[in-house]
Amino acid sequence: MSLDGFVAGADQGLDNPLGIGGEKLHRWLFPASEPRHEGDVPAYEHLSLRRGAYVMGRNMFGPVRGEWDQDWRGWWGDEPPYHAPVFVLTHYPHDPIEMAGGTTFHFVTDGFAAALDRAKRAAGDREVLIAGGASTARQAFAAGALDEIVLDVAPVLLGSGERLFDGVADPGLTPVDVHGSPYATHIRYRVG
Amino acid sequence: MSLDGFVAGADQGLDNPLGIGGEKLHRWLFPASEPRHEGDVPAYEHLSLRRGAYVMGRNMFGPVRGEWDQDWRGWWGDEPPYHAPVFVLTHYPHDPIEMAGGTTFHFVTDGFAAALDRAKRAAGDREVLIAGGASTARQAFAAGALDEIVLDVAPVLLGSGERLFDGVADPGLTPVDVHGSPYATHIRYRVG
Repeated sequence: MSLDGFVAGADQGLDNPLGIGGEKLHRWLFPASEPRHEGDVPAYEHLSLRRGAYVMGRNMFGPVRGEWDQDWRGWWGDEPPYHAPVFVLTHYPHDPIEMAGGTTFHFVTDGFAAALDRAKRAAGDREVLIAGGASTARQAFAAGALDEIVLDVAPVLLGSGERLFDGVADPGLTPVDVHGSPYATHIRYRVG
Repeated sequence: MSLDGFVAGADQGLDNPLGIGGEKLHRWLFPASEPRHEGDVPAYEHLSLRRGAYVMGRNMFGPVRGEWDQDWRGWWGDEPPYHAPVFVLTHYPHDPIEMAGGTTFHFVTDGFAAALDRAKRAAGDREVLIAGGASTARQAFAAGALDEIVLDVAPVLLGSGERLFDGVADPGLTPVDVHGSPYATHIRYRVG
């Protein structure tokens, strides 16, 4: 999230999937040079923990809107970093896509609650991560589905775009961990 | 600031100077019980450092709008915590108010740049602190007057109110210190 509350810049689209300036939010995650700043390592490791299943919005899965481009298989190459079932919210049915390394994208057309339910059953005792984007995160807040959130606050002002918390009722948040680098401040909150 | 970017709640006024829910932003500063949480102590000590002079907006000085109520002498009792000249931005002239402990409120009607100039001259070699509120902070950003900002991010969503960064162009920010408590996350940024 930018310091002014945006998780994507203005004018998201095929040419600019993160919106104008949106890439500035991810410098901590995709460093311009290796190694990653030590202040970002704990957040990277936490994000990279293996979860039992994931839920993400269709706009996070890809830039295509409307009917599916059958060739699109996500941003992450042949072996996405999930290694688990990923339930993608969409209004357009699509057969599951099985990738290398254990990731299978499942497409769910009957809403957030159904996707979360499927993710929980797939995950068993393991955690379900709501990967994003903003709309999916807001649906998770509205459903009271979150035990914990992690915010990676980039030191940038985008001025416009998609706000993470628009219309989200305060769920009761308690910071439980904070660390950071010049590229982001990482805050983990307990919810409720 | 709230996690959704507000430094005051909606409907600020005489009865509710911080706006609806605005008091939730200050729990770290005014703890319900002593002692203050150890995670908030460094931010409190940094805020309490003696500066050479201060600039604040009229709405931070008091809840009265329009012509002055000549009895109003600020929120802080007989001995305000500034112990230095405080330059208050206003459209309504007012004689200086000398308080106990070295604080004198000066009222500046010719704009932010003039107030900052007077503050710098009064401060000499010492720091000038832009105390707030949001409008004054935005004028300081627009003037390129800031070397450093401190954000105390409270874990609350206000949903509406006055946004700190509305219309602020990205000045280039680098986090240089972060710490916190269950009540707030304190981030200090170098500007420019």
